[in-house]
Amino acid sequence: MSVSKESLISQLRSGDARALTRAISTVENHSPGWIDLLKQLFPHTGKARTIGLTGPPGAGKSTLVDQLAKHYREQDHTIGIIAVDPTSPYTGGAILGDRIRMQQHFSDPGIYIRSMATRGSLGGLARTTADVASVLDAAGRNLILIETVGVGQDEIDIVRLADVTVVILVPGMGDDVQTIKAGIMEIADIFVINKVDHEGAERVEREIRAMQSLAMRPDNWTPPIVKTMATDGRGIKELADSIASYESHQQNQGLVSQRRIQNWEARLLEMLRDTLLQRAHAAMPNGELSRLAAEVAEHKRDPYSVIEEIAVRIGVL
Amino acid sequence: MSVSKESLISQLRSGDARALTRAISTVENHSPGWIDLLKQLFPHTGKARTIGLTGPPGAGKSTLVDQLAKHYREQDHTIGIIAVDPTSPYTGGAILGDRIRMQQHFSDPGIYIRSMATRGSLGGLARTTADVASVLDAAGRNLILIETVGVGQDEIDIVRLADVTVVILVPGMGDDVQTIKAGIMEIADIFVINKVDHEGAERVEREIRAMQSLAMRPDNWTPPIVKTMATDGRGIKELADSIASYESHQQNQGLVSQRRIQNWEARLLEMLRDTLLQRAHAAMPNGELSRLAAEVAEHKRDPYSVIEEIAVRIGVL
Repeated sequence: MSVSKESLISQLRSGDARALTRAISTVENHSPGWIDLLKQLFPHTGKARTIGLTGPPGAGKSTLVDQLAKHYREQDHTIGIIAVDPTSPYTGGAILGDRIRMQQHFSDPGIYIRSMATRGSLGGLARTTADVASVLDAAGRNLILIETVGVGQDEIDIVRLADVTVVILVPGMGDDVQTIKAGIMEIADIFVINKVDHEGAERVEREIRAMQSLAMRPDNWTPPIVKTMATDGRGIKELADSIASYESHQQNQGLVSQRRIQNWEARLLEMLRDTLLQRAHAAMPNGELSRLAAEVAEHKRDPYSVIEEIAVRIGVL
Repeated sequence: MSVSKESLISQLRSGDARALTRAISTVENHSPGWIDLLKQLFPHTGKARTIGLTGPPGAGKSTLVDQLAKHYREQDHTIGIIAVDPTSPYTGGAILGDRIRMQQHFSDPGIYIRSMATRGSLGGLARTTADVASVLDAAGRNLILIETVGVGQDEIDIVRLADVTVVILVPGMGDDVQTIKAGIMEIADIFVINKVDHEGAERVEREIRAMQSLAMRPDNWTPPIVKTMATDGRGIKELADSIASYESHQQNQGLVSQRRIQNWEARLLEMLRDTLLQRAHAAMPNGELSRLAAEVAEHKRDPYSVIEEIAVRIGVL
């Protein structure tokens, strides 16, 4: 199928949206040839800027990303949006209502939106998101917005793979706001307080500033706090300006390549984990893992020697 | 140090809280001998019931878990609480204010609280949480409450390892409530609507019921919706009753061992991944991964052949 793959790549490079969709699906589903496709696309990557946006549920992320994309579009950027949704562990499906709604806003081919609803059973979500971003990059999208719902560790891993990380907060988040911030405080290059006319906006801002006074970043950047009302577009230009300021700071301090190296290190580690696990799966007959799990659940064997046995069997111990 | 390990285990088994703390730290930090410790504790495990509780930030989880622990304590259960906090990727630390506050509520040695603030660089959080639960189980705690902040994939993985999963929602969560529920709808054995006297409680309940009408569980259990005000203890008894009902349902349907086998399958898989990754790390000289990451970042090599090379080097390809 190498002829078809070459034509897929040339169509993709010429900006064909259907080829882009097909290439992303191949990578997301780990369809045959996906690694080979990524390998061939790799020389065409490295040009796009990636911006990761995360925050707690209810922060209005979709609307904000929507507005930011429109803003960049007016400056003639070509945009790719990756919206990462939670997974349903039974079905692998997700409710895509809000993504579909979002898609309806854009008839402009300069904005391409992809929802990542599922998580591969083997590949991690952060890795797959990064791979999909690489496809968008190779397709000539020069600005990639990665939006994740939630602020769990998985979401943190995803947005850390971006060049710039934006953390979106909203007023009135309740008692757990301290706990959220503990996890995301240090990954935020820029804070957004969205829905800023809601009660409690000043309190959120005060809390961010209080935490900033405690923690000094190694790169001497103090993440600015941008106030937005995504629903009417207020603050969106300021957000884009703050992103540009941070990018200048990175460039002036020679930090761009440092961050990319760190990101690749994390990405290589995840790729390695996936590869090794696939190898382990391949070495076990069908149903072997669940047979072993039953033995452990019935306390016939301890799980630690089961793992040692498998490792010996696939030749790594 | 096998004498000291034997005495650690006998102290732990006799209910000594300091021995418990030491054993948990050994397992959490992957200190020397941690696997051996878990192996020796394994025959003493399998007796505790584990209850996982999760929900979005601001749902009042800590207070609810606190109240539920007190309720079970009145029935003479011995309780272990594992509170999983978000990680700070730079420092590995976390803001533990609310956990410390919680700890002050309990002078009763029958309730043991452990915050899991950090995530090992190699071991996954779900795996470490499960290992810590095993230590509590071996120490004779017969009821283990696992509380996670957030509803990301990582949190879902953690609470799925429990015998019973409780999902806590609150009124007024905004537009993203649909998206959250998509991820957690199917892992919930019981729903809690906390802060039930806040505006919008009926709407949350209606939405849960609407989604339930769409999805039939394979075990024919319809997750009940319990309304609570954790701050004054309202609904806590009803929550405990619902948990007991679900446990009866599991027993009557012969589903207890089925769930434990599934859980062990997921756990074995994560253990295997950790083991393989450690092996890969050991096979790479110090700094090798970051050297390779730099080559990829500078586009001197593609990441996919780098991974193949490492896999060949450690003998799995």
